[in-house]
Amino acid sequence: MKEKILAYLKGKHDYMSGDDISSRLGISRQGLWKHIQELKDTGYDIVAVPHLGYRLESSPDRLSGLEVSHGLDTKFIARKVHYFDYLSSTMDFAMQLGMRCEPAGSIVVAESQTKGRGRLGRSWVSPKYKGIYFSLILRPRIPPSASPVLTLLTAVSICEAIKRASGLEARIKWPNDIFISGKKAAGILTEMNAETDKVNFVVIGIGLNVNNDRKSLVPHATSLKEQLGHAMPRLVVFQELLRVLEENYFLFEEGGPGPVIEKWRNSNITIGNRVKVHFQDSHIEGQALDIDNDGSLLIRKDSGLVQKIFSGDVSHLR
Amino acid sequence: MKEKILAYLKGKHDYMSGDDISSRLGISRQGLWKHIQELKDTGYDIVAVPHLGYRLESSPDRLSGLEVSHGLDTKFIARKVHYFDYLSSTMDFAMQLGMRCEPAGSIVVAESQTKGRGRLGRSWVSPKYKGIYFSLILRPRIPPSASPVLTLLTAVSICEAIKRASGLEARIKWPNDIFISGKKAAGILTEMNAETDKVNFVVIGIGLNVNNDRKSLVPHATSLKEQLGHAMPRLVVFQELLRVLEENYFLFEEGGPGPVIEKWRNSNITIGNRVKVHFQDSHIEGQALDIDNDGSLLIRKDSGLVQKIFSGDVSHLR
Repeated sequence: MKEKILAYLKGKHDYMSGDDISSRLGISRQGLWKHIQELKDTGYDIVAVPHLGYRLESSPDRLSGLEVSHGLDTKFIARKVHYFDYLSSTMDFAMQLGMRCEPAGSIVVAESQTKGRGRLGRSWVSPKYKGIYFSLILRPRIPPSASPVLTLLTAVSICEAIKRASGLEARIKWPNDIFISGKKAAGILTEMNAETDKVNFVVIGIGLNVNNDRKSLVPHATSLKEQLGHAMPRLVVFQELLRVLEENYFLFEEGGPGPVIEKWRNSNITIGNRVKVHFQDSHIEGQALDIDNDGSLLIRKDSGLVQKIFSGDVSHLR
Repeated sequence: MKEKILAYLKGKHDYMSGDDISSRLGISRQGLWKHIQELKDTGYDIVAVPHLGYRLESSPDRLSGLEVSHGLDTKFIARKVHYFDYLSSTMDFAMQLGMRCEPAGSIVVAESQTKGRGRLGRSWVSPKYKGIYFSLILRPRIPPSASPVLTLLTAVSICEAIKRASGLEARIKWPNDIFISGKKAAGILTEMNAETDKVNFVVIGIGLNVNNDRKSLVPHATSLKEQLGHAMPRLVVFQELLRVLEENYFLFEEGGPGPVIEKWRNSNITIGNRVKVHFQDSHIEGQALDIDNDGSLLIRKDSGLVQKIFSGDVSHLR
């Protein structure tokens, strides 16, 4: 009901009489008043004037289901939003949901994370109300070996969403670090639950620095705010990202990995560079030639040998 | 403490005085008596004779931690046993444990399952006290693409354990169905939780028909009892299987997939046969040539083309 009241108030820019709202939504004046109070408690600035009614002055900068769903018009992504003020990790929560028949497209959003996770056991700093931290549940009909393409798809989507929402040019460092002006603005973590030959579900986690200030960022990280010189409404970026993710997911479902890989090629800063790839206890150096349709990186070593890399940390060399 | 008392009683074949047991294990006579009662309640036939003490006459046919651990002497497999009279599915429980830092080697055992799961969403019939139904948690340092080898390793281990415990010759139909005299006696389901390039953990589920009677088996299934003509202590088969699994796992850790694949070749009934492989909505037919080091099946179609199959259901043709 709160969703309905809010959608109603958001649709109008003038005062709405309580009687009108009550009768349209089939709720008592008493019930309406109670819901309005609860909305005000969560940060909605709703003015009530006798004889005129209610008016929504402003909405809080929150990534709640109420806010995210309004005007989103996606087919399946974020049709269900699990929203938390804080979580230890949106990944852990989403993996649990995945095991309980949660529908594809559901997202888990947290305003802050106490144990935000990154690739290979690293952490993701998640200060409250500054960034966008969420996990998306997908149920693609693919074998586990095809899952890296979903990470590339996500990287491409983040770049496109940043461009559309802010005009900033983001670029991808293989496989999935998002850079703006040479500094990292977003990270992606993809986990799956799978049989050996069939994915049961995939959870894609995204951490995107939006309004983080310089002092809360490590030296090699950046945020949209730092790049733009002013803060951005996180909701605008978030909704754009959800829309683009869905567009690219449909593209992948219909056309396979090809179109996604092609977009990735156009947004990356790794191919053509001399790179050093670090593994657990070794590294190789060479020229990054291209990526394969399975998402692996092809590197030509100085010996001339071309090696296919599925995993590792890349540094770009001069 | 119950483990200790039981281990103590199992080690002796004569009456043990309560005073002796109490002082050796540092427990009061009252406490000892209480534990003995509890053991009796769970099926242990312990006789108490005044002035002589306690004697274990027989243990119940249960796959509890108390029974499984006794004399097992494995390094890491089944060092921790989660035992249940029934569970919906040992897989679901083990996948949950895996997400909570459960150590590698832990097993989840159920005397019956209400929703025992098989490959590709199929069910596994799990009548109480008849078969062995368990899931094993492993944490191998491998990429997801290497996980099929663990399934082959498990298939090999089941054949070896059946042979050692009963003398019966079990054979593998690709990838992981265990057949005795042309009928299915065991099944394997492997699930994993993984990043795109790194397995977090793997859960291997095994269902093995031991003392199932003909009337509880579908026509193409069999049990060790049916093949032998008499029942077998499930514990003997189970402990043998746990030992063999550990042996083969160490073999894999040290020598990679090669030795496991070689054992698989020696135990399979698919290679050399004319087969039909069924997929979701199609099938191919041809000669099964070999398996690759990644566990895939190589099939030569009548056109001469050799195709690599990662997944599917195989029927053997005449």
